[in-house]
This record gives sequence, structure tokens and C-alpha cells, in this order.
Amino acid sequence: MGSSSVNDPNIMEEGGQQLDHVIGDRNVAERSRMLLNAPQPPGLCSEFVSSVKDIVNLPNGNKSYSGEKKKPELKQHVGTVLRGLFPILSWGRIYTLSKFKSDLMSGLTLASLSIPQSIGYANLAKLDPQYGLYTNVVPPLIYALMGSSREIAIGPVAVVSLLLSSMVQKIVDPVEDPTGYKRFVFTVTLFAGTFQAAFGLLRLGFLIDFLSHSAIVGFMGGAAIVIGLQQLKGLLGFTHFTNNTDVISVVRAVWRSFHDPWSPHNFILGCSFLIFILFARFLGRRNKKLFWLPAIAPLISVILSTLIVYLTRADKHGVRIVKHINKGLNPSSAKELQFSGPNVGEAAKTGLICAIIALTEAIAVGRSFAAIKGYHIDGNKEMVAIGFTNILGSLTSCYVATGSFSRTAVNFSAGCQTAISNVVMALTVILALEFLTRLLYYTPTAILASIILSALPGLIDINGARNIYRIDKYDFLACFGTFLGVLFASVEIGLLIAVTISFSRIILNSIRPGINNLGQLPGTNNFCSTSQFPMAIKIPGVLILRVESSYLGFANANYIRERILKWVTEEQENEESKENARTLQVLVLDMSNVLNIDTSGIHALEELHKELVSLDLQLAIASPTWKVMHKMKISKYMDIIGSGWIFLTVSEAVDACIGSKMVISLPC
Amino acid sequence: MGSSSVNDPNIMEEGGQQLDHVIGDRNVAERSRMLLNAPQPPGLCSEFVSSVKDIVNLPNGNKSYSGEKKKPELKQHVGTVLRGLFPILSWGRIYTLSKFKSDLMSGLTLASLSIPQSIGYANLAKLDPQYGLYTNVVPPLIYALMGSSREIAIGPVAVVSLLLSSMVQKIVDPVEDPTGYKRFVFTVTLFAGTFQAAFGLLRLGFLIDFLSHSAIVGFMGGAAIVIGLQQLKGLLGFTHFTNNTDVISVVRAVWRSFHDPWSPHNFILGCSFLIFILFARFLGRRNKKLFWLPAIAPLISVILSTLIVYLTRADKHGVRIVKHINKGLNPSSAKELQFSGPNVGEAAKTGLICAIIALTEAIAVGRSFAAIKGYHIDGNKEMVAIGFTNILGSLTSCYVATGSFSRTAVNFSAGCQTAISNVVMALTVILALEFLTRLLYYTPTAILASIILSALPGLIDINGARNIYRIDKYDFLACFGTFLGVLFASVEIGLLIAVTISFSRIILNSIRPGINNLGQLPGTNNFCSTSQFPMAIKIPGVLILRVESSYLGFANANYIRERILKWVTEEQENEESKENARTLQVLVLDMSNVLNIDTSGIHALEELHKELVSLDLQLAIASPTWKVMHKMKISKYMDIIGSGWIFLTVSEAVDACIGSKMVISLPC
Repeated sequence: MGSSSVNDPNIMEEGGQQLDHVIGDRNVAERSRMLLNAPQPPGLCSEFVSSVKDIVNLPNGNKSYSGEKKKPELKQHVGTVLRGLFPILSWGRIYTLSKFKSDLMSGLTLASLSIPQSIGYANLAKLDPQYGLYTNVVPPLIYALMGSSREIAIGPVAVVSLLLSSMVQKIVDPVEDPTGYKRFVFTVTLFAGTFQAAFGLLRLGFLIDFLSHSAIVGFMGGAAIVIGLQQLKGLLGFTHFTNNTDVISVVRAVWRSFHDPWSPHNFILGCSFLIFILFARFLGRRNKKLFWLPAIAPLISVILSTLIVYLTRADKHGVRIVKHINKGLNPSSAKELQFSGPNVGEAAKTGLICAIIALTEAIAVGRSFAAIKGYHIDGNKEMVAIGFTNILGSLTSCYVATGSFSRTAVNFSAGCQTAISNVVMALTVILALEFLTRLLYYTPTAILASIILSALPGLIDINGARNIYRIDKYDFLACFGTFLGVLFASVEIGLLIAVTISFSRIILNSIRPGINNLGQLPGTNNFCSTSQFPMAIKIPGVLILRVESSYLGFANANYIRERILKWVTEEQENEESKENARTLQVLVLDMSNVLNIDTSGIHALEELHKELVSLDLQLAIASPTWKVMHKMKISKYMDIIGSGWIFLTVSEAVDACIGSKMVISLPC
Repeated sequence: MGSSSVNDPNIMEEGGQQLDHVIGDRNVAERSRMLLNAPQPPGLCSEFVSSVKDIVNLPNGNKSYSGEKKKPELKQHVGTVLRGLFPILSWGRIYTLSKFKSDLMSGLTLASLSIPQSIGYANLAKLDPQYGLYTNVVPPLIYALMGSSREIAIGPVAVVSLLLSSMVQKIVDPVEDPTGYKRFVFTVTLFAGTFQAAFGLLRLGFLIDFLSHSAIVGFMGGAAIVIGLQQLKGLLGFTHFTNNTDVISVVRAVWRSFHDPWSPHNFILGCSFLIFILFARFLGRRNKKLFWLPAIAPLISVILSTLIVYLTRADKHGVRIVKHINKGLNPSSAKELQFSGPNVGEAAKTGLICAIIALTEAIAVGRSFAAIKGYHIDGNKEMVAIGFTNILGSLTSCYVATGSFSRTAVNFSAGCQTAISNVVMALTVILALEFLTRLLYYTPTAILASIILSALPGLIDINGARNIYRIDKYDFLACFGTFLGVLFASVEIGLLIAVTISFSRIILNSIRPGINNLGQLPGTNNFCSTSQFPMAIKIPGVLILRVESSYLGFANANYIRERILKWVTEEQENEESKENARTLQVLVLDMSNVLNIDTSGIHALEELHKELVSLDLQLAIASPTWKVMHKMKISKYMDIIGSGWIFLTVSEAVDACIGSKMVISLPC
């Protein structure tokens, strides 16, 4: 039905006649005909199909990494798929001894940082210390097989540990029911891994884009402060602390704890080693050759403080220590997963949120280091890799692992070449689990707290926030809102604020679009906004307005119509007050920005036309886009305003008005 | 900080030099400078302020109705405000006897339709019949004082009655606790009126735009069928029926009721009068002079059927009758309102939904008839009028009233001139309440059902739905989804579907924008999409892409970057396969549609530039809009790509490429 009117000879004829009458220029008429005879734009169904195809066929950055092209043979095809799933099959064949040397060094450096950090993160996740170490064994090994980033360091991270404990402890109390808590955490890990792998396999990589960069800056900043406040418990050696993560609860808990008896030894020990770690980092930054110093400082702190406690028996004097760490490799946790009971839905929800945050961090980390080395990371592939990492992790007593900001930077500056550095790190952690757990018995918890505290400044990106503020105030609102939400409410509320503010921007943009008055740029045929180009000259008798919205529809059609009418009446009043003889004759509506229109939009245009007729004004439409043109045709709107009043450009519309002597030409 | 870099002479100087070097054309350089030196666009704060001002100062259509302009004096000012609130003060002074004659006739016609309809609607709302009549007394009187529509007929309507009963009966059972139910309904009415008045006073008229026209078409169609099915109870004389409104429950209830003993007399009586009413309408449509026939047919049916039942004592043989109707004027219900207890929140929620649906109907009705008579209705003023109507209604035993589709059409065709016809109708209903209630005792409920049934076809707009399907498939999806939601789930679910589908369109449009390849239209300087204009010619060596999104930001920046890269690599592969000597040199990005950009968008552009550099391609940006230009300046992105590569139009960018001999000129 729609397409029949497109080629309706009557409309064309009438259009042509009117055009000749008005303009008398065959050339313009011909161009107008091009506009009228455009092919039909793709419909909803074909758009949906092409969008799905798009998702499935997005450029696969990993191909350039493997350096292979698809070949039709089955064997070759299987090879390609396998190499796609396990990039190690590609780069493993060109792996050299010199690369291994670099990877060995960086792997060992990484391990020296990972061991104390992961014990601290397990503490933050309210798990026993060995679970942090376990999470540093299986996930890095799996990722080395499946991942495509060469620098990323996989393992437990601060933000996910915090998120996990803050969400899970609302459902299972880690003190009253430690086994149930542990089982729930493994179940959450399995769900998180499954969601991540599913996102990757279904090519839903764009989902993580919904957390905008600015929201992540705010989220990370807020989370860093919350994590830092949680460390006060370890640093000050408190026994009673709050389970809430918001600033107010924590400050209140700290205040209350000061009234209980507490030992200052913890604080002195923790602070002195914190200063040592920070000083080591300062030295490492000043002198690039000392890059290993900040990486190894945490391990040195652990060794020294453990020795001090062991020799002075300070644990008898109120210094809190790690105590028992289970010896041996990761036990299987397959039987601990729970798929029945009332909390499975909660586990899935927690898993989803952890999955998204973990992916966001991993992909941001992976991409930024890949950009430095000049290769591309395919988000969907990374999701699959991280997903399987966590699925297998959940079966081997690991909790949610992802790429860590701080350790990846250490890995990079230690000169890692491939994911083998992760393997080296995992093997070192295995050795530590076998032989060193008894030595860690006397490690003071204050040292773990100070190691975590020292890693936090990297999460607070003040420069990034300042940059966001400078470039885009609304983005800063999202950033700051998320920050405050995480700080004063909870991690989930912060995320909710982030998504809400980000999406409300898209919606606000659509429901309150701008309308701009256009004028001719001197010496050109271009018509530009008079606010952007104050030198643009208005054409007397013609009001040219541009609708600044990509969508003219239910949410804004009425508003746009009223704004246009307001502009018209103001212009008329203006002319009357000037006692200007040349009154307004034509309204040219530049629709070049309107990419789509719906039935409400068409209806508003119809009403606008009626109202303009009652004001004795002619409506001309300039540069309608493809879909708008098509819908104006099938809705017969074009018959209402006359197809001779539709122009390819604003300048042609103005020429037509001047040519038809409706308005007086301006000498320019 | 932002504005300092805008006028940074270094940038300008560098830009200028680069420009001369590349183009060697002072004119283009000058225009490029115009682009670079544009004033700063309004910030977030000033945009917010102007948006608030906009809301407050929207054109006030009612001023033209009153024909008055504001004057500075206080007394005059008070007068204007009073006339604004009570338009009757304006038009009342020019009211004439001839107008009154028309209003009297149309008011009496209206009353003859209103009395039986409102008893039926009270039944639908599960209230005693007199409450329908009460709602036909106070609301029309208040509206006559405050409303600005001249045709609208105020009173109870089918959709709101259904909505009210279906939502309220989930909280208070109308059979077990009729007093509590009634009190709850009055409270809901007060809330609805308060919300409506608040929307109007705060100028939030745009809120009702969120229910798109297509969603309303679907909603009304679904609601009409649901209402029709509810009438089966009255028409078939069932005693047991379901409280659910969805089709499946109702069909099941009808099926079950057929197994109980039931009297076919109800059905025969109802059907024969339904046929009579429909035949009267058919006659009225055929012959415009008989317009009163369809309007008066319901009253005739009531009188005749009541007489038949009274004379044959059919109520003894299973014919269900209305029975007792309370005599006398509206009693006060001020003391029945409840503001404490657990259900106040529910009352507010129900009130909000009823308020929005009632407003949508009233404003749609008012506007469409005002458009026929050629005057404009201010949505915000109407909201205040309807709001106060319901607030006062809730104090005088009325439930939610609004403008009725069917009765407004009758009022219009009966030739009403002003809202006085509503007053005449209300006075007639008062007379009926005083003297006729005892006569209505024997009115069969089947007749009321058939009167409601006869009004339903007007709510089902099949032509409208077909039109929506033809013009916009996605709109039709919203329409049909809402229809199915109302039909198979519930009224609220239908509304939820409507809002969700409508808004997801806006979001989908933003996250999956199109990228179009542009070519030169033969014989012009215009560059247009090659899919819209198949005759457009591509420029060898230059790839011109247009981003078809009004917003380049977090939700789509990555996608757009990947799509552009995909296009570039495809173009390069294409050229390689053709063994074409002229390989791609420049990518011109037409940003004319991108009205805003955020930090993620800037970041994506930066990455795009890096990736293009690695592919040995130059990036040129054509026609950036105001805000985009500003943000590229303050984020120093312009320094990265070089301000000489930013052009006012695509054609200038292409000329510059040809002029710089980067690409070979095409003879055309």
C-alpha cells in the first residue's frame, strides 16, 4: 500500500507542475524528483535481521592476532575455531626462549605482589585466606589458554571482592554460617562465569558499554574509598566492625570501636609498612630501573613483619595475625554448588552484577594496555575467556576473578610478553600453597590492610574526573552521582544511579530537543545556526528552523510543534513592532537531523501545517532524511503540503521562495 | 578552563597555518575559522534553567480564547489570573441567548444519553447506580467554570470506571466491604484530582505525551473489548462472575456460568434493545438531520424496557433489574476520605494511573474537537480544570470524571456552543435524581449493558491501527503490544507495555545508530547517502561516512567506532581485489547529525584516529555541530587531528582532499 503511492504518477505530476510554477528551474525539479523517487528504506524486520547479523559478524580483532584467514576445508575450519577459542595455539607456536625469560621475570614479580594482595582480598571478601590464593592458581592458568590479552594479570580484585561480600552477607552471614557463605560465593562465581561466557558467545559485548566510562570512574573512586575504610578494621585491629559498606556506618563503627579497648601496635606496624610501600613506589616512579621495587615491597613487608611478630611474639600483645592457612592445592568445590533452595535467584542476581563489574574492569584493563602495544582486543572473545575462567574457578574453590588494574600495570612494567607470565605466577602460588602457608601464620593482618590500602590510589582517577568535568558536565553528574551513591548508600545503589543517569540523558535529549534558527553564511550557500555562527544572515520573509533531534515522535512531537509555533509568533510580533512591510511568508523546516519519525510525529506535522495555514504562512520542508521522506509519502502528508514544497537543501528552498516572489530577494 | 582554550591563539595560529598548507584557499580557511571561533554553547546549568523557563512560559493557548493581554497593574493582573483560571469570566460576558438555545438543546440531548450511561458505568466501577449520576452533577458544573474546551462532555467514562474497579478490588472487596470500597474510591478520586491539578500547575503537561498515540489506540481497543466482556454478566443475567478483567478469565467465567441455571429473558431483552440502539445510530449516520436519534435511543430503550418489565413483572421471572437508587442530591463525602492506614500508598498509586488515563482521554477529546472548530487548548490549563473537577468531585460522592469520547461527539453534533450545555445536563441529572429514581427501579440491567456495549465501537479505532501499521511498524508494535497486554494480562500491564515499548525505541535508536556512505549528487555540491540516492557518485580515494545518531556517547561510541573501521577495511579490501591503483587516502566523517557527544564519544574518536593512523589514513571531520565542535576543542581532540582537517561541509572537505593532491580529481 505504501509503495504504490511512492510511484503514484499523479503526485509526481502535480509535484512537477507546482515546482515549475514556483521555481521554473528544471534542475531543481529534477533533484526534487530524486528525493521523491528514492527507494524504500529498510523496514522494521529487515532492520532487525541486519542488526542481529551485525552483532554476530562484528569485526573480529583476534584474527589479526592469530594472523590466519578462514579457509573452506573442514579441518582448517576446526583449526580456526580452536585457535579462536584458544589463542595459545596460535602464539604458542612462535613462542621463543627470549620471550620466556621476560615472562619468567614478570611472572615472579607478579607473584610476589599477588600472594599478599590475594590474602588481603580474600579477607575483604570475608573468605579464609587460602581462597584468595586458590583464585590466583586456576583462573590465570585458564586465562592463559583462552585469553587474548598479553598483559592482563588475572586473579581476585578489590572491587569485586567488596561487591561480593557486601551483597552475599545480606543473604548468608559469613560469621554465623561460614560454610554456607562459602558455598553461596562459589555458586555466585559459577553464575557470574556463565553470564560472562553467555554474553560473549551471544555477542552481547555491547552490554558493558551501558556502564559509561564516567560512571566507572565514579564507581571505582567510591569503591576505593569504601575498601579503604573497610581496611581500618585490620589496620586498627578492631574486633567489632560494621557489615555495611557506606561511609556513615563505617565512620560510626570506627568511632564506637575506639571506645573499646584496642591495641595501637597494629596501627604502628601497619602504618610503618604502608609508608615503606608508598616510599618504594615513589622510588620506582622516580627511577624507571627500580620498577621491581614497588612490586616486591609488599612481599618484603610481609616477610619482615612476619619475622618481627614471630620474634617478638607480638600476637600475645594484641597484634592480630592471619593464623592458620590451609596447606595444599585447590580442593574441588563442585559438590558445594547449590542449585536449589530459596536463594538461587539471589545468587543469579549477584552473579550478574559481579559478572558485569568484573568484565568492565577486565576489558578496560586489557584494552588500555593492548592500545599501548598497538593490538586490538575483541570484547566478546575476552568475555568468553573470563567466563570460562570463572566457571572452572567455581569448581576449584575460587571466587570471581578478573583482570586487576594494579597487578596488570606491574606485569606490564616488568616486561611481560605473553600470558605465560600468568602461568609462572600461578605455579609460584602453587609452590607457596604447598610450602609457605605455615610461614604465613604469623603475618599481621595490619600488613595485609596496608597492602590493600597502597593499591587503592590507582583506583581513584582524579585527573579523569577533572577531565570529565571539563568536557561534559552531564557526564560528570553521572560520575559524581555514582561516586556518592557508592559512598553513602551501597555498591548496588551506586550502579543503579550510574545506569539511571546515563540512560536518562538519552531520554532527556529526545524529549527536549532544541530548535535552531538558521541563517545564510555570508558568501556561501550554507545555512547554519545563528547561535553557532552569529555572522549568519537571516533571509527576510523566510523563517528557517532546524529541528535538533534525531527522532520526531510521541515524546517530543507536541513540544517541537509548540516551540516552532512560538518561534513563528515571536517572529511575527517582532516584525509588527518594527513596522516592517515585508512580513513573514514562509517557514522552512530543515529536517536534516530528524532521522526517524513516528505516527505522532506525522500527526504533529499535520497539525503544524493546519496552524500555519491559519496564520497565512507556507510550510516548506528541506532535506528530509530517508525514512522521514518515506513516511511523509505513505502517510499522504506530502499531498497535504504539496510535494513542490519539499526541497533537497535549505538553500534550494530559499531560492524557490525568492524565485516565486513570495519574498523579496536580498542582494548579497 | 574550557573557555580559555577556546580562544587560545596558539591553536588558532596552528590551525590557520595547517589550513593554508593543505588547502591554499583563503575563503575556505576563513569559513573554517568561523567554525573554530564559534561562541561557547550553553552549559548544562543554563540549559536546565532555560528548559525550566520553557516549561513555565509555554504558549498559553487560552489567552487567545479570552482575547486579553497582560497589563502591569495589579488589579488588571488579578483579573487576568482569574480569567485564566475561570475562562467563564471571559466568554460569559459575550454569551448570547441564541448560544443558550443551542446549549439547552445539546444539554438535554446529552442528559438523555448520560443518565443511562452513567448508571451503567457506576455498575462497571462496582458502585451503586446513584454514584454514576452524582458524577454527572458536580464535575460538569466545576468544569463549566474552569475548563476551556467548549464541546467536551464531562462525567464518568467506561475506561476509567474499568481501570478503577480492576485496581481497587484487588485491595478492598466491593462485595464483602462495600463501604470500604466506596471510601477507597473517593480517596483515589481525590488523589487523581490532586495529581492532575499538580501536573497542570507545575506545567508538566508533557507527561501525558509519554503515552504515545499508538499506545492509546491499542489501550482503548483492548479496554473496549474487556469492558464489552464485562457486560456479558449483565446481558446474560449471570450471578457469579470473575473479578479479573483478562479475556481468559472472563471466557472461563462465562463458560462456567452457562452451566448454572440462567434466564434467557435478560439476553433477549438486552439484545433487542442493542439492535434498536445500533439501528438508530445507523439512521443518524445516514441522515445528518436525525443526529438526535442515536443520542436519545438509549433513553427510549430505558423507558420502554422499564415499562415492559414493570407491566409484565418480568423481574419475577429472572430478569435482573436495577432496584433501589438513592434519591436526592450528592451527599458530602468529605468525611469518608481516608488518609491513614496501610492502603494510602496504594490509593495514591491507583490515583496516579487513573489521573494519567483520564487526562489522556480528556485532552485527546478536547483537542480533537477544538481542532475542528479551529481553536487551541492549553494542556496544562485543562489539567488544572480536570484536577479541580475531581478534587471537588471526591468531596461530593463522585468518582473519577473526565471527558467522554462518545458523549462529547453527541454534544458536538447536537450543536453545543459553550460549556453551558454541561450545566444544562447537570441540572437535568439533578432533576432526575430528585424525581426519577423511583421510576428507574424496574430498569433491567441488561439494558444498561447494551447501552454500554453500543458505546464501545467508538473506542476501537481499527482505521487508526491500520494507519499506524502502514506508516510505522514499530509504533504498531507498541499499539498491538498494549492491546494484547490489556486483553490477556491486565490494564496496568498493558500500560506498562506501552511505556516500555515506546521508550525502548528511543534507547534502541540511540544504541544502534546507522552509518551511511555518502556520494556526490550529480551536478551539485551536495553529498547524500548512496542508499537513499543510488545515483550519488563516490569520490575515489575518499570514503565519506555519516554517523546517523544525534548522540555519540557511552551507549554507542564503541559500536560506531567498530562500524566505521569495518567500513574502512571493507573498502580497502574492495580496492585491493579490484587491483585499483588509487587506494583509500582520506576518511571524511560527516558529523552533521551528531548533536552532542560525551567523554566516551571523544574517547572513541581518539581511538578511531589512532587506528586510522595505523592504517595510513587521514581523518577529516565535516560539519561538526555546535556542542561537538566545542567539546572537540576543550578536549584537545582538535589538536590531535589538526584543526585544518575540520570543515564546514563535506564538499569543502572533499575539495581540500582533491586540492591537496592526496586524491585524484574526478572530472565531473
